[in-house]
Amino acid sequence: MFFASDNSGPVPPQILDALARANQGPAKAYGNDPLSEEVVHRLRTLFEAPDAAVYLVATGTAANSLALASYVKPYDAIFCTPPSHIEEDECNAPEFYTGGAKLRLVGDSDLLDADDLRAAIDRSGRAVHNAQRGAVSITQATEKGHVYTLEDIAALSAVARDYGLPLHLDGARFANACAALDCTPAEMTWKAGVDVAVFGGTKNGLMGVEAVIFFDPEKAREFELRRKRGGHLFSKHRYLAAQMQGYLQDDLWLDLAREANAKSKRLLDGLTGVAEIAGTPQVNMIFAKLPRKLHAKAFAAGAYYYCMDDVESGDQDQPVMARYVCDWSISEDQIDRYLEIVTG
Amino acid sequence: MFFASDNSGPVPPQILDALARANQGPAKAYGNDPLSEEVVHRLRTLFEAPDAAVYLVATGTAANSLALASYVKPYDAIFCTPPSHIEEDECNAPEFYTGGAKLRLVGDSDLLDADDLRAAIDRSGRAVHNAQRGAVSITQATEKGHVYTLEDIAALSAVARDYGLPLHLDGARFANACAALDCTPAEMTWKAGVDVAVFGGTKNGLMGVEAVIFFDPEKAREFELRRKRGGHLFSKHRYLAAQMQGYLQDDLWLDLAREANAKSKRLLDGLTGVAEIAGTPQVNMIFAKLPRKLHAKAFAAGAYYYCMDDVESGDQDQPVMARYVCDWSISEDQIDRYLEIVTG
Amino acid sequence: MFFASDNSGPVPPQILDALARANQGPAKAYGNDPLSEEVVHRLRTLFEAPDAAVYLVATGTAANSLALASYVKPYDAIFCTPPSHIEEDECNAPEFYTGGAKLRLVGDSDLLDADDLRAAIDRSGRAVHNAQRGAVSITQATEKGHVYTLEDIAALSAVARDYGLPLHLDGARFANACAALDCTPAEMTWKAGVDVAVFGGTKNGLMGVEAVIFFDPEKAREFELRRKRGGHLFSKHRYLAAQMQGYLQDDLWLDLAREANAKSKRLLDGLTGVAEIAGTPQVNMIFAKLPRKLHAKAFAAGAYYYCMDDVESGDQDQPVMARYVCDWSISEDQIDRYLEIVTG
Amino acid sequence: MFFASDNSGPVPPQILDALARANQGPAKAYGNDPLSEEVVHRLRTLFEAPDAAVYLVATGTAANSLALASYVKPYDAIFCTPPSHIEEDECNAPEFYTGGAKLRLVGDSDLLDADDLRAAIDRSGRAVHNAQRGAVSITQATEKGHVYTLEDIAALSAVARDYGLPLHLDGARFANACAALDCTPAEMTWKAGVDVAVFGGTKNGLMGVEAVIFFDPEKAREFELRRKRGGHLFSKHRYLAAQMQGYLQDDLWLDLAREANAKSKRLLDGLTGVAEIAGTPQVNMIFAKLPRKLHAKAFAAGAYYYCMDDVESGDQDQPVMARYVCDWSISEDQIDRYLEIVTG
Repeated sequence: MFFASDNSGPVPPQILDALARANQGPAKAYGNDPLSEEVVHRLRTLFEAPDAAVYLVATGTAANSLALASYVKPYDAIFCTPPSHIEEDECNAPEFYTGGAKLRLVGDSDLLDADDLRAAIDRSGRAVHNAQRGAVSITQATEKGHVYTLEDIAALSAVARDYGLPLHLDGARFANACAALDCTPAEMTWKAGVDVAVFGGTKNGLMGVEAVIFFDPEKAREFELRRKRGGHLFSKHRYLAAQMQGYLQDDLWLDLAREANAKSKRLLDGLTGVAEIAGTPQVNMIFAKLPRKLHAKAFAAGAYYYCMDDVESGDQDQPVMARYVCDWSISEDQIDRYLEIVTG
Repeated sequence: MFFASDNSGPVPPQILDALARANQGPAKAYGNDPLSEEVVHRLRTLFEAPDAAVYLVATGTAANSLALASYVKPYDAIFCTPPSHIEEDECNAPEFYTGGAKLRLVGDSDLLDADDLRAAIDRSGRAVHNAQRGAVSITQATEKGHVYTLEDIAALSAVARDYGLPLHLDGARFANACAALDCTPAEMTWKAGVDVAVFGGTKNGLMGVEAVIFFDPEKAREFELRRKRGGHLFSKHRYLAAQMQGYLQDDLWLDLAREANAKSKRLLDGLTGVAEIAGTPQVNMIFAKLPRKLHAKAFAAGAYYYCMDDVESGDQDQPVMARYVCDWSISEDQIDRYLEIVTG
Repeated sequence: MFFASDNSGPVPPQILDALARANQGPAKAYGNDPLSEEVVHRLRTLFEAPDAAVYLVATGTAANSLALASYVKPYDAIFCTPPSHIEEDECNAPEFYTGGAKLRLVGDSDLLDADDLRAAIDRSGRAVHNAQRGAVSITQATEKGHVYTLEDIAALSAVARDYGLPLHLDGARFANACAALDCTPAEMTWKAGVDVAVFGGTKNGLMGVEAVIFFDPEKAREFELRRKRGGHLFSKHRYLAAQMQGYLQDDLWLDLAREANAKSKRLLDGLTGVAEIAGTPQVNMIFAKLPRKLHAKAFAAGAYYYCMDDVESGDQDQPVMARYVCDWSISEDQIDRYLEIVTG
Repeated sequence: MFFASDNSGPVPPQILDALARANQGPAKAYGNDPLSEEVVHRLRTLFEAPDAAVYLVATGTAANSLALASYVKPYDAIFCTPPSHIEEDECNAPEFYTGGAKLRLVGDSDLLDADDLRAAIDRSGRAVHNAQRGAVSITQATEKGHVYTLEDIAALSAVARDYGLPLHLDGARFANACAALDCTPAEMTWKAGVDVAVFGGTKNGLMGVEAVIFFDPEKAREFELRRKRGGHLFSKHRYLAAQMQGYLQDDLWLDLAREANAKSKRLLDGLTGVAEIAGTPQVNMIFAKLPRKLHAKAFAAGAYYYCMDDVESGDQDQPVMARYVCDWSISEDQIDRYLEIVTG
């Protein structure tokens, strides 16, 4: 009953198989091996972007920070929402990689609103005293489990373009969003005006691989140098490539995401009527309130997930918000067992 | 006939097995899983340092830069040799992670000399105008394939201590040096006065794992925050831990290094008398000069390694320096075949 | 009719005299001259802080950023208000000097509220993923012309202390606040719990000098190195010291501030009933709305100050917010002339 | 008998007069006042560069670091000599402002040799692992009192241009070099291929003003933002401009430099035959060895200058190297008195 995060589960056997296949004989280092080159080609094909500059790194924080640092100057601001991963969960990595840019928080939701964005950019000064306008960053699916529609992204991109700003898409849960929208990666990115996207693998079944896709290949050299300078260029790059190869093969990435979303839907259905559901869960993440005693009971039975408040002390009948995340590996039995505990 | 680097070869089957073993059920993220904790314990035991702060990262550049940044202030200087990996091969990563510290090059050899070090530190000013004295960094085995004796390290450490400076040991080829010296990890580090060591795995059979060992655990929290800020904290940390577990199990790390050193010795023996050997190769790396035409002949036959000059154009009889590195995976047959080509 | 800022006016003759007095013969550089030492002593006396570490720099941005960087780590957050000068008007200088710390905006006022501060600190995570708690920064008087009472400062300091955080006071208008509160510098700083204060001179009659006062002298060496590294250590330091000497002599600093506040009061009295005054102006800054046509009329007559909206185009009867700042040098005639224009 | 540095002396009366003239009425801030604009115009005229981007800052360290940071990326290297001020005397300011670029030391002299430069650039790798080629920096006159000929500068510029690198000229003693070469500022800069020059005032009679001149105005906006971010944009900019106005008026800058050079020549002539002169002093700086006892005698009589070794203890007959710097203000009497002491 691990609902803590989609980084809790094991990787599917296809990934181990891909690693084993890649583990034959010598290979050139730093991404100059045939497998790495094949994976770049495959990602370009998947994204219908034959000229894209495509890079693999091992963590989402590295992917986001390096992507942003390729566009944003140290004296710039990045427009994003308050709960953005880049704001809340990366220990100032974006500030580090950009050399000190500022994150300018817009609105109070996880979903960036195009009008709010325009107003925030307008409000930001252009004098030499002010942080300059650097980039817009959104997360798809968001940190609260919501999904921008293709129209939403296009509207945000239109605002960004009006000010000459690039649009960055943090796609730690890219696949879950694609599955929810039933759209192609190209539709969710460059066709909607995204300039650089992170195609996440780690939260969706890989050990630790994220692809950074620049639809404008002009940023390629700068990214390469910043990646190396950040210590994120793997010498034995084939083992990143192998994971991504397994992930792309036969659309495994999409199957895993669909499965994670479906598991979450099962949990959501079970919680509905019992818990107070926050927002409208669209992918594999649910925020919901249950009485403290039910969380305590579940924890005592071995469940593991985040509560926004202490569950051991305090009024036992008081509702406490919890975050549930399902990945592909969680079984229906575990979900049902959890539901039994909190509804029983 | 891949002699390009010890990052060219595959990983041994024990590592894939360890990954498979670790790939069971859910696990807490960010190093809070039992396997990660076990590996920390094992490394402390191996280093006879029960209080050491021990961390895993995926690349050597990250390991070195984060280790140094935990000690060195932005206004400091790091004393090291001109061919240091931190100076030559990390694209300013140490400068990045320290916030702009300077690397102060000492001597003109890959082996730092204690008297040279003392003179360099003495020469460095202490006024507010000068880069302050920050740390001393050495590489064991060096970038030229040489090994400091335990006495050498103790002498360097004594100088560093006289000035209150920490001693950092870049151990990308730690195991090869340990094997060459037939000493314990403790003897080669804290017993000789090293303050923070990188215990490298990537060049010795892992996909991408290095351990950073602080013998002074006071640096722990700062390292943790800097690691996260650098995007080097893996959420699915168990897959780093698993590799390290496989590496430590039954002293695999030492066996692999011995095998790499032995392979290099076989190559060295074969080259002796034919090539002009530079320095005294002590681990798994050889620098040697052969007539250009012999390199060209070997390349034509499929050999792959670095030459310091173009082999295709130029005087065919002129000697050209090459670097050969063997890892555990290179076969005796490949070595012998290469020797046949260049001696035949 | 220059109400644009308190950096518009000339310096009083005492400052030119002090420069001339200091301009005799040779002097040691970098603050080692007798005049610089005298000024440090005088500032310690003024602040009743015999052990304080005291430094002069030429700009407020440098003073704030260097003061904060002496406390705040690159992975930390600084708690401040949205209109803070460090957030809005320093082009990411605090981020630059701290190596990438984050400014965490608290509340929506220019006056930081102690309860809001406590809630914001509580809300900020302490996990390795989150920006760590670094410092609290307030501006006295604020960017909107308000003044914290001594009790307010003590309450904020109490919160900061509960979390072990230092309290930084941006005192660009320190003197104006002191005059308004009729308190001593010591009362407004360390006696109320401030750890590091900027004692501003530039907005109050100097060419460009700010004093940074660390009540904890332990930060001295780090500040000195960071000041030099930032290019803010003047070789001919005596000319900063001379200005500060003139400023301290016979309480000129306080006289100038009282005069500026009184001039602002005259303007405020004249505007009351005519304009819509925002907040409660307490020092030398007024925010007030007048119909657009009155601003346009005043500008046509040579007035100069900031309006928050275009005054040339748009509804001429619509109220437009303006910012008025008076310094010591503005004459009563100019104020009265302006009032005549907008009330005439 | 202050020969410590050309930052020891007072400023000439013309500078105080210029400050007094500028100190009339209100003025727009941040360089938007008429005097600041006039000075930009005058500098463009002096440099025969009508399109140059021209900026004033208060310190040489700021001028150099900001100039370099406008060209050099964090992953780049700056080629310079070992005794460069940017390497030895700025406490890592260039590393700070560039975001962590590396200073690559070329040769072992204070005068950069064009062949050495070419070899150093050639040797520097271009792979992603290496610090990239960023800029070339020279100091005119050098830190050892030598002067590049116009041909020397052109030769260095030609090398830089071959690799697409900008040439930066640290002109802390620009005027002294111009006087020594009897050439125009344009000849010593853009006509010889310099891309950005610092036209120093502080060491030649100003309180603290340096002009940064970009002959390629494309760097203007970036410099402006970096200057503000560094805290180096003066609000009361007119007081920097006034000093520069006084400096340019009637070629005061050149007169002061000629006077300083002439004073140094008088000292040199007196020392010749008595002291062992190092190199060939060409401007206002002399390095010379005298027996320790003579330094001690001079110090006892009130002389003040730097000796490279302790003068109080040690063999009294042993020669000890000293640095003498004269500025315009030192009197012939003082020089003669010093010469009497050491020759008497």
